[in-house]
Amino acid sequence: MAGGSGTRFWPRSRRRLPKQLLPVLGRQSLLQATVARLRGLIPPSRVLVVTHREHASAVRRQLPMLPRANLLTEPVGRNTAPCLALAALEIARRDPDALFVSLPADHAIGDSRAFRAVLGEAFAWAPRATAVTIGLRPTAPETGYGYLRLGARVGGRARRVQAFIEKPSATRARRFLASGRYLWNAGIFVWEVATVLALLERHLPRVIRPLRAAIRAAPSRRATALARAYARLPAVSIDYGIMEKARDVLVVPGRFGWSDVGNWAALATLARGRPGRAPVVPVDASGYVVFGSDRLIALVGVRDLIVVDTADALLICDRRHAQDVRRVVRELERRHLEAYL
Amino acid sequence: MAGGSGTRFWPRSRRRLPKQLLPVLGRQSLLQATVARLRGLIPPSRVLVVTHREHASAVRRQLPMLPRANLLTEPVGRNTAPCLALAALEIARRDPDALFVSLPADHAIGDSRAFRAVLGEAFAWAPRATAVTIGLRPTAPETGYGYLRLGARVGGRARRVQAFIEKPSATRARRFLASGRYLWNAGIFVWEVATVLALLERHLPRVIRPLRAAIRAAPSRRATALARAYARLPAVSIDYGIMEKARDVLVVPGRFGWSDVGNWAALATLARGRPGRAPVVPVDASGYVVFGSDRLIALVGVRDLIVVDTADALLICDRRHAQDVRRVVRELERRHLEAYL
Repeated sequence: MAGGSGTRFWPRSRRRLPKQLLPVLGRQSLLQATVARLRGLIPPSRVLVVTHREHASAVRRQLPMLPRANLLTEPVGRNTAPCLALAALEIARRDPDALFVSLPADHAIGDSRAFRAVLGEAFAWAPRATAVTIGLRPTAPETGYGYLRLGARVGGRARRVQAFIEKPSATRARRFLASGRYLWNAGIFVWEVATVLALLERHLPRVIRPLRAAIRAAPSRRATALARAYARLPAVSIDYGIMEKARDVLVVPGRFGWSDVGNWAALATLARGRPGRAPVVPVDASGYVVFGSDRLIALVGVRDLIVVDTADALLICDRRHAQDVRRVVRELERRHLEAYL
Repeated sequence: MAGGSGTRFWPRSRRRLPKQLLPVLGRQSLLQATVARLRGLIPPSRVLVVTHREHASAVRRQLPMLPRANLLTEPVGRNTAPCLALAALEIARRDPDALFVSLPADHAIGDSRAFRAVLGEAFAWAPRATAVTIGLRPTAPETGYGYLRLGARVGGRARRVQAFIEKPSATRARRFLASGRYLWNAGIFVWEVATVLALLERHLPRVIRPLRAAIRAAPSRRATALARAYARLPAVSIDYGIMEKARDVLVVPGRFGWSDVGNWAALATLARGRPGRAPVVPVDASGYVVFGSDRLIALVGVRDLIVVDTADALLICDRRHAQDVRRVVRELERRHLEAYL
């Protein structure tokens, strides 16, 4: 799932270059790292990427080994459920008995080996459950993540999921962390394609039916048919649209340094900044993180700033306000400052 | 006196472009504004500019109406007393009976008309005093300025000066402000050239004698002679070297919106920022001042920042730390980052 628009990483992320296509951690983009991380478990010939039509050529450039038919494009973003539905229809066309993992292309994972071990275990459980998700031991009372409540053990590391919980309040998040009975929901699901299609048919017929009809169109008319279908689709997430209503969901808890890299502050924690070629000169400054271009940056008497310097735009943001970077993008849209979007 | 190096206005001011040559307020540089402000009182043919040798060509470009002989250059900066001495020697050569005003080229004055009226009054008193200075009614307990204590009235607005006081502590500055008996010392003096030379001879013979000898050298050898003399001169200010020891100094108090524009925070108060052509986008930001180039600048959740954006360097400074910008320059020197100096 490589469909994000990534407004929270402005000014590095732009409409044409959203977060998943940016090399925010290391040399690879988050998308490239996500595909590379599956190596040994899933060959590129069996990786499907779903992205916005505008980003198709960038994805092809970043993933040259990806077969052309494995790139599915959406004419417009409608959150994760339509993306999942589109992929499931294609997977079922190739193999109606397939097991697959659906996962976001814009997350960070520190320990790929541990991740693959957990994912392998999830695949092993998948035939015996509606879905197997991967849960992360919380390390902080995050209010930006969804949580899941652990149920009974079923064998190995796997447990039942009692409930999916939307982003909690700070008080609830602290209780979740203290109790030890909650995991972060990373939005990674392993399941049978037949089950996914059945779940969509049952809970989101308004999503799956128009899409099914559209992809049955003759190849020459498919793009138009998809565009018409998407224009009328509701924007709905997998969690809200399916998982909160599903029974018999299992979870394999993992510990592999996961982050959804939700904003500059989250990235700052992972990356400790990435200055450009020119130096950073602090004078009585602390807690700053610089993502730089090639300009020298001097910081005098400031605390806890995130500085993101690009060729045409500069962001100076208090770390605690990293979520508000989206508001900058909204303001740019309101002022019709297209050049910066 | 256009000899400042202006390290406190980095990154706009550089070695080759110090503060007095920058258009920090309006379209004119501070030097151009200083010369323009004398219009009607002193014609350009009688304006002498003393500057560092490195800045001579920039000064000529900025003041094309200035006769070439009226630009005096110093091979190295030695504070204001040697600068005054060099000018006084040249003035005395042209007219031993001259009255003149010595003034810094890098101050801001809001009301030029009021300034000229006060300066005219100072010229009227000059033949009857050692020096006539111009004092400003303090509007805040500034610790960055020198002060002078008011003595008896002598006629018109003029008063005796009881004492010159160096930059005071915060407590003293508040007392000065409350008492109403102290003025800011703007470093502007009107005096007879014969008196100035006598004061220098008496209080700073180590300054005036080597300079007198150097300018008597043949024209072809004068630059070398001056360079040798300056190399051995002490760095000393007019205030410390002469005024604190002088008797019979008068002051004409003025009110014309004066500032020594000592740092970015002072300039921010005068100018309320000067963004570049691209917009500034604040989100939950306040108290900021932007001196911009042509990049869009977004400020999120920050308070009281000064942002100075140039082609190769960016300054982000808390307003209360504006004095520390000098430390950035020192650090650049220490790291031998010549390109940014």
